[in-house]
Amino acid sequence: MHIFYEENLQNALVKLSPEESRHCTKVLRLKAGDEVGFTDGKGTFARARLVDVNAKSTTAAITHRELKPKRNFHLHMVVAPTKNIDRFEWFLEKATECGIEEVTPIICAQSERTVVKPERLKKIMLSAIKQSQRAWLPRLNDTVKFKDFINNYSSDTPSFIAHCDEGEKNPLRDAYNPGKDVMIMIGPEGDFSPEEVQLARDKGIQAISLGQNRLRTETAALVACVAVSFMNGEL
Amino acid sequence: MHIFYEENLQNALVKLSPEESRHCTKVLRLKAGDEVGFTDGKGTFARARLVDVNAKSTTAAITHRELKPKRNFHLHMVVAPTKNIDRFEWFLEKATECGIEEVTPIICAQSERTVVKPERLKKIMLSAIKQSQRAWLPRLNDTVKFKDFINNYSSDTPSFIAHCDEGEKNPLRDAYNPGKDVMIMIGPEGDFSPEEVQLARDKGIQAISLGQNRLRTETAALVACVAVSFMNGEL
Repeated sequence: MHIFYEENLQNALVKLSPEESRHCTKVLRLKAGDEVGFTDGKGTFARARLVDVNAKSTTAAITHRELKPKRNFHLHMVVAPTKNIDRFEWFLEKATECGIEEVTPIICAQSERTVVKPERLKKIMLSAIKQSQRAWLPRLNDTVKFKDFINNYSSDTPSFIAHCDEGEKNPLRDAYNPGKDVMIMIGPEGDFSPEEVQLARDKGIQAISLGQNRLRTETAALVACVAVSFMNGEL
Repeated sequence: MHIFYEENLQNALVKLSPEESRHCTKVLRLKAGDEVGFTDGKGTFARARLVDVNAKSTTAAITHRELKPKRNFHLHMVVAPTKNIDRFEWFLEKATECGIEEVTPIICAQSERTVVKPERLKKIMLSAIKQSQRAWLPRLNDTVKFKDFINNYSSDTPSFIAHCDEGEKNPLRDAYNPGKDVMIMIGPEGDFSPEEVQLARDKGIQAISLGQNRLRTETAALVACVAVSFMNGEL
C-alpha cells in the first residue's frame, strides 16, 4: 500500500497536492478504487480509497483513521552534519525509518560543514515516514553551535556524548535505562574536541562509547538509534 | 592515525602501492617519522612509522604487530541488492564498519537488480575496514539466485529470513541466541515472494520480524547487523 503525507486528515475526503496527484497517476499508476494510506506526521494514520484520479487533482475518501501512540520514550539525537552532506541525509533517512523523535544538527569546533538546508532535510524525513509507515514526523531543530547548545542545555533527561578519545566512558548499553527519554550527542569527522567533551560533562552529560571500532559520524549516530530502539524492545 | 590496507604484513618493512603513496603525500601530507596503521584483512593489525615518503613509493617500518581475534560468532548476511546500487553499497560499508563476517548478494523473484560488480563492492569493504580500524575483511560471496542458494543450503547455523508479509514470525531478539553463528536473509524492494519464504522455511530457516515498521532493504539489513552486535555485547 502506498502512503501519502497530508497535514490535515480530519475531513472525510483528502485532496492530493498536484505533485502527489501526478506521482499517483504517472509513477504508481493507481486507479479509482485503489487503497492508499495517509500519515499526517502528528500521530494519525489513515486508510483511504481513491475516488477521483487524475494527474492534476486526485481525491481519496478516508475509510479508517487511527491515532498511533508515540513511543514510550523520546530519542533526541544531536549530531554534527558531515562534510559530505549525503552522509548526514542518509543518517536522517535511516533514523526516521528506525524511529527517532528529535534531531538537532550541531556545529562543533572541528566541523567541516557549518550549513545545512532544513527544507531538504524535512523532505527526507517526510519521505522516510511515508516509506516506513510511521505516523510521527521527527522534530528537526535549528542548527546550533556546540557552545550555544551546551550553554542553554538544562534537562533531567539522561544525556550522553559519544566520543573516540581516551577517558572514562561507559558503553551505551550500561549507561541507558530502557523506557527513559534520552539525548545523545555525536560529533563530526574530527570528533568532539577535548574541551567540548569537558563542557558537556560539566553539564552532567555522560561520556559513552559505541564499541571498540572507529565508526563514521553517520554510522555512530544510526547505531545509537538502533541500540536505543533495541533496548526498548522494538526489534 | 591513518590506516592502510596491505595484504602482507609479515616483513619489517611495508612498501605502499603507488596509489597509496600518492594518497599519503598529496592528501594526508604525511612525513617521515609519522605513525600509521596497517590492516591485512586477515586478522593482523600493525603500527608503523613512515621511513621514506614520496608520491611514487613510500615505505613504512612496522613497530608493533598484533593478531586480533575474530568475533566469537559469525554473522552471514544474505541480502538482495537494491535497484539503486548506492543503497546496497551503503549497507555494505556500514555493515563492514559495524562488524560482519560474510555477505552473499542474492537475486530474488522480485529483484529489480540482477547484477552487481564485486570489484567495486570489495573496494568499499576495504575502505570501511581501514576507516573503522578492523583487522578482518568480510568475505564477499558470488551473487547467487535465491533458488540456487536455498537448494544448496544446508547448515546447523541458526538461520533466519526477515520478511514483511503476515504469518508466524518471531522478533529477531527472541529468535537469536547470542554467541551463536547466524545467517540472516533480507529481500529486495518488493520483498521475498510467499513461495520464497516457504522454500526457506522448508529448509529450516525461521521467519523473523524486525519491528512494526516497513524498513527499506538496506535499512533492515543494517538493523539486523547492529541488533546481532548489540546482543553479543559489542555496543
